[in-house]
Amino acid sequence: MITGVNHIGIAVESIEQTMQALASFGAQELDRKAYPELGQTSCMVRIGDGLLELMEPIGTQGVVPKFLASHGQGLHHISLLTDDLAREAAALAGRGIRVLGNPNGESRVVFTHPKDTNGVIYELTDIPFSQ
Amino acid sequence: MITGVNHIGIAVESIEQTMQALASFGAQELDRKAYPELGQTSCMVRIGDGLLELMEPIGTQGVVPKFLASHGQGLHHISLLTDDLAREAAALAGRGIRVLGNPNGESRVVFTHPKDTNGVIYELTDIPFSQ
Repeated sequence: MITGVNHIGIAVESIEQTMQALASFGAQELDRKAYPELGQTSCMVRIGDGLLELMEPIGTQGVVPKFLASHGQGLHHISLLTDDLAREAAALAGRGIRVLGNPNGESRVVFTHPKDTNGVIYELTDIPFSQ
Repeated sequence: MITGVNHIGIAVESIEQTMQALASFGAQELDRKAYPELGQTSCMVRIGDGLLELMEPIGTQGVVPKFLASHGQGLHHISLLTDDLAREAAALAGRGIRVLGNPNGESRVVFTHPKDTNGVIYELTDIPFSQ
């Protein structure tokens, strides 16, 4: 079952520059981690009662550098919380929706193929963000 | 002050088709309204503890038909709730962020220019969705 919206993912050229614009909304940086192996730095940001994940590229390989090269900055994915990642992934696959990633893996995230979910990438995870 | 995330706006070719995919997530349609003068039908959808606005085109004129023609289906905007729309809009303008729409108008929404907010369109409103 989907229990909530975890965060909204945004691809940005610069976390610093984006935080300057988001400061107008009273947004607050909560956490920042570099994932060189994925080609991105992720910055979790509180905005109102919601969460954003700002994703800044590291190098030229990985989802974020490639997204920026082809689309430019902008909205990237919606992250949904589920109480059972493996069951959710299996249910999606059973409805013909391609699921990328291993629902039993350590990362605890999978993604839908946007061509199967009307242009939107949905991330599914069973680990809510906590500071 | 920004008090919350109101919804996430998604441009779609077909609300019906999108709801079929979203049914996998237990999403539930709450409300649907046609705005021929804006060139769109809006469908509010509950997903977990969050809200989506599915925007389907009517005709070829308006924000949604034009977005679909240039970008295809996908994430369109983040709607934020504020407790003072006019003050929020003035604060944004004071920081050099272009604000589109009339913060004192009847529609109770304004939008940021995505070039000034790192590729993301933020909608601001002081009216939370209620069914």
